[in-house]
Amino acid sequence: MSRFWNKKINSIEPYQAGEQPGPGQKVIKLNTNENPYPPSPKCAEILRSFDIDSLRLYPDTDSKAVCEAVAANEGVKPSNVFVGNGSDEVLALCWQTFWEKAINTDKKVLVPEISYSFYPVYSDFYDVSIRKVPLREGFAIDADDYCSCPNAGIAIANPNAPTSRVICQDDIRKILDANPDSVVLIDEAYAAFAEDYQSAAQLVPEYDNLVVVRTLSKAYGLAGLRLGYAIASEELIEGLKRARDSFNSYPADRLAQALAAAALRDRAYYEKTRNAVISTRKRLVAELTALGFTMPDSAANFIFAKPPAGMKAETLYKNLKEKGILIRYFNKPVINEYLRISIGTDAEMDEFIDAVKEELKDGQNS
Amino acid sequence: MSRFWNKKINSIEPYQAGEQPGPGQKVIKLNTNENPYPPSPKCAEILRSFDIDSLRLYPDTDSKAVCEAVAANEGVKPSNVFVGNGSDEVLALCWQTFWEKAINTDKKVLVPEISYSFYPVYSDFYDVSIRKVPLREGFAIDADDYCSCPNAGIAIANPNAPTSRVICQDDIRKILDANPDSVVLIDEAYAAFAEDYQSAAQLVPEYDNLVVVRTLSKAYGLAGLRLGYAIASEELIEGLKRARDSFNSYPADRLAQALAAAALRDRAYYEKTRNAVISTRKRLVAELTALGFTMPDSAANFIFAKPPAGMKAETLYKNLKEKGILIRYFNKPVINEYLRISIGTDAEMDEFIDAVKEELKDGQNS
Repeated sequence: MSRFWNKKINSIEPYQAGEQPGPGQKVIKLNTNENPYPPSPKCAEILRSFDIDSLRLYPDTDSKAVCEAVAANEGVKPSNVFVGNGSDEVLALCWQTFWEKAINTDKKVLVPEISYSFYPVYSDFYDVSIRKVPLREGFAIDADDYCSCPNAGIAIANPNAPTSRVICQDDIRKILDANPDSVVLIDEAYAAFAEDYQSAAQLVPEYDNLVVVRTLSKAYGLAGLRLGYAIASEELIEGLKRARDSFNSYPADRLAQALAAAALRDRAYYEKTRNAVISTRKRLVAELTALGFTMPDSAANFIFAKPPAGMKAETLYKNLKEKGILIRYFNKPVINEYLRISIGTDAEMDEFIDAVKEELKDGQNS
Repeated sequence: MSRFWNKKINSIEPYQAGEQPGPGQKVIKLNTNENPYPPSPKCAEILRSFDIDSLRLYPDTDSKAVCEAVAANEGVKPSNVFVGNGSDEVLALCWQTFWEKAINTDKKVLVPEISYSFYPVYSDFYDVSIRKVPLREGFAIDADDYCSCPNAGIAIANPNAPTSRVICQDDIRKILDANPDSVVLIDEAYAAFAEDYQSAAQLVPEYDNLVVVRTLSKAYGLAGLRLGYAIASEELIEGLKRARDSFNSYPADRLAQALAAAALRDRAYYEKTRNAVISTRKRLVAELTALGFTMPDSAANFIFAKPPAGMKAETLYKNLKEKGILIRYFNKPVINEYLRISIGTDAEMDEFIDAVKEELKDGQNS
C-alpha cells in the first residue's frame, strides 16, 4: 500500500509468473513452458549479419516483416495480423479494445473457470467484469456453455492452461455462430503442440468477430525475445492498433522483428522441434501413468498431472525444487492437487522421472 | 468506428508518431529526434557474442543488468530503477500507477499546455483528468505555476518537447517542495543534450514523490531497441512493478537488456556523440538565425524554429519533404508556426541548410 499509488494499483493482485533461476544457477526448468530446444538456426544467421547501426532508428510500428511471415504461414493477409511485445501484451490490448468496461455494461466476459491466470488480472486492471464458466468433468470445456449466455465477449485458451486440454475447431465455430455480436478471443499459445489441430485462425476470413492470439515464446523457442501476434479481421486489427497507439507506438524492436520473421519462415525446424516435444510428452505420460499419476490428455508442451494417492502435489513440488527441478504448483482450490510439468528434453525428463521415483520410494519408507 | 470496439477505443484520438520512411527509401530524417550516430561499438560486441540459445528462456522480468548500469551512472541503487519497453511504455505505466482516475478524484494532473503530445493521449486512454498549464513568453515553463494549485500529480518534460526549453534543478526542487503529496514526473528523454544540466535523478534520494523517466532512444542511439527506464524511490518503483505485472511481466527482451546495459556503461562514447550533437546544434542555430529564423534556446537534440516572415512553416515542411528531407510539423494552434528539426550529422545539416536557402530564394522569386 502506498499513498502515491492510485486506488487500482493499491487494490490489484498482480500476476505471478513462474520463478526464474538466477544466472549460473543450474536447474532443470520445467515450470514456465519454455521450449527445451533453441530457436531456429536462421535466427543465428540474422543476428550475426544484423546491421547494428540501424538500431538508431525507430522500428516499423506495424512489424510488417513479421505480419508477412505470419500471413504466409496462416493463409491470411498481412493486414489481418497485429504484432506485440509478447502475447501477454497482445492479450492485454485485446482486453482494452474489445471488452466493454464494467461501468458501461451489465454483461460480462466469459472465461473458463480454470484457465490462464492472467485473464482475471487483466480484467481487474482494466475494469472489465468476467464470468468464470465452470469446466466439465476432467477439466473439459463444453462449447454449449458459451452458446446461450448473453456476454460482453468470450476468451478461451485453446489448448487451455494449465489443464492442457483442447477443444476442436467445430466447437469454436459453434461458439462463433452463437455469439455474432461478441468478440471471441481464442488464445492459441500452445496450439503448436496439439496433434491434428486445426487452428481457429482458419476461420478468420469467415468471422469478423474472431481474434486468435499466438506467441513465439513456446513453439519457436523465443520466450526471451518477446513476440506475440493476433490474427483477426481488419476491423479488429484496426482496434488493436488504436489501443497500441494510445500506449506505445513501437512495441516490437528491430532485432525482435528480424529474428521473429526468420523463425516464422523456418517451417522445417518448427515441425522438427514441435514433433520432438510431442514425442517426449507421450513418453512422459506413459511413464507417469505407470507410476500411478493421472492426467487429462495433453495437447500442450506441458502436462497437468495428479500424483498417486498418498503423495501431495505441493510436497512433490517442494521436494523436487530442493533437488534443482522446477515444476509449477498452483496454490488454488481444485488445481492444487495437480502439478503443471513443462516438457523438457528427453534427458531432462529422464532426470525428472528418476527424481519422482525416488520421492515415491521415500514416501513409501516414511 | 466499430461495434466490436469498446466505447473508449471508439472515442480516443491515438498518438501520431512521426512518419517513418519505408526500407530503401532515401531521405534525410530529421523528424523523430533519433540520434544521427549509431549505438556504442560495445553493443556490436555484445551482439556478435550473444548466446542465441538463451532466447528460449524468458528474460529477467526486472532487467537487473540494466538497473545496475543505470544505478552506477546515476548514483542510485538498482532498486531505484524500473525498466520498460521504451520510455513511452514507462510513461504509460506511470499514468496507470500514480495518477488517480477521474472517477475517484476532482483533482487534475498538471501538464504544460504545450508538451509531449502523448500525455493527453495517455490521460484520455486511462481516464485521468489533466489541466494544461499555459506556458509563459517564449514557451517558458514557470515553476511557480505548479506550486499553488491542488493537483493529482504533475508531469513535465524537461527539456520540454517540442519547445526544446529546459528548467533548472532548483525549479524542480521548488515544485517538489510545494507538492509533497503528489507524484512529480520529470520526463528527461532529451536531458542528455542540455549543457550543464543537473538531472532531477539527483533528487531521488531526497524526494519519495519524484519519478524521473529516461530513454535510450535519443542519447544512446537505440530508438530501434525500445528501452526506457524510471528512477524513483523504492515505493514508486514497486507501484510500477505492480502495474507491469498486471499487464506484461517481461517488458524488455534478452537482447535489449544486454545491449542496453553495454550502451549505458560506455560513458566515453555517450559523451562523444552527445557533444557532437550539441556542437552541430549550435552551428545549425547560428545558420538558421542568420537566415531570419527565430527559436527558443534549445537544450535538446532538436530545435523548434519559426521561419522568417513570409514563409509558412507548413509550406517549408511540405517543400522539404518533396526534396526528401523530413522535419516535423504540428498542425495545431500556436505551434503550427514552428518546425521541429532534429539534429542530424553535420553533412545532413549542410544539405538541410542548402535546401532551406533554396526555398527562401524561391519564395523571394515567387
